[in-house]
Amino acid sequence: MDYYSKQINQLVESLSMLPGIGAKTAQRLAFHILSMPKEDARRLSDSIRDARENVRYCEQCFTLTDDVLCPICKDAKRNHKVIMVVENTRDLAAYEKTGKYDGVYHVLHGAISPMLGIGPGDIRLKELMQRLQKDVDEVIIATNSSLEGETTAMYMSKLIKPTGIKVTRIASGVPVGGDLEYIDEVTLLRALEGRTEL
Amino acid sequence: MDYYSKQINQLVESLSMLPGIGAKTAQRLAFHILSMPKEDARRLSDSIRDARENVRYCEQCFTLTDDVLCPICKDAKRNHKVIMVVENTRDLAAYEKTGKYDGVYHVLHGAISPMLGIGPGDIRLKELMQRLQKDVDEVIIATNSSLEGETTAMYMSKLIKPTGIKVTRIASGVPVGGDLEYIDEVTLLRALEGRTEL
Repeated sequence: MDYYSKQINQLVESLSMLPGIGAKTAQRLAFHILSMPKEDARRLSDSIRDARENVRYCEQCFTLTDDVLCPICKDAKRNHKVIMVVENTRDLAAYEKTGKYDGVYHVLHGAISPMLGIGPGDIRLKELMQRLQKDVDEVIIATNSSLEGETTAMYMSKLIKPTGIKVTRIASGVPVGGDLEYIDEVTLLRALEGRTEL
Repeated sequence: MDYYSKQINQLVESLSMLPGIGAKTAQRLAFHILSMPKEDARRLSDSIRDARENVRYCEQCFTLTDDVLCPICKDAKRNHKVIMVVENTRDLAAYEKTGKYDGVYHVLHGAISPMLGIGPGDIRLKELMQRLQKDVDEVIIATNSSLEGETTAMYMSKLIKPTGIKVTRIASGVPVGGDLEYIDEVTLLRALEGRTEL
């Protein structure tokens, strides 16, 4: 790493700290940045700094946003009585992309994982329970279909049910366009259990 | 891209302008940056800005550096009478990694390519010819072994030979550890032509 000048080395080093960016890729990116128009490099630099300094958690749903409340929580047109609980902001974005969900969200920032030592106190569960003291009709649990996601869903449903609020879980089954031949057995069994009448 | 707040979108967009970084990877990197310690994000941001604003061409060999002259051109211990000509700063770094070359370099920043419309005037050839007016013993041409690299090497040797300065080309052949079975025919023929007596 001593073959370049100090600032190039520093750039390569900073870039190689990013996930999935090895030494070779960091070098390639660094030389690309050095050949970029100055304003583009400046924009990249600023967007990193601004995002990291200004992005914070929405005070209501805890998604990552620039403001006290995120655009979804601020939106009066959304149904604030239906809360979809997701593990992270990317999962929220995945449902927003469908364009069909008009409720609001709650972002846990993780899932319960005894293996990794993440307990119910380490995710935004307490904050969810506080939100449920207001007028809420339904909590849709949309944690991942992984061991951790299922554990979290189970734990949450036990916690919420005594409040009398309706708790639902998104369906597990064969993905649309999926070929049965290539789907794992657990998913096939889930699809069978969750069958609906036509 | 409208599922996140403005600053997150901007960050994802800037990152996805980098080569080899698609929308999904940009998203993953953006959320990683948002979860980084503030000082690390700041360091990344600063290193991009500083490198792009301050890195320039060495006035002698045209490699990318922070100063008027690069560390190699400044080094009195290097043999300034032997100049290795490379296509770019990464190629220079590749030879520096060997730790065995004690001459200096000249970085062309490209190679002649009629296909891409890059002529001799588009690379740092004129600057090399100016350097050769000083006391130089040998020019080692280390352009790539590609069509463009070979064309450039040929062109340069014709240009330099009349000055009486010795012009050499790095050897082409079977890479060390290479298995003949998997080496292309052109390389095998080159290795045969370039054979040396034992």
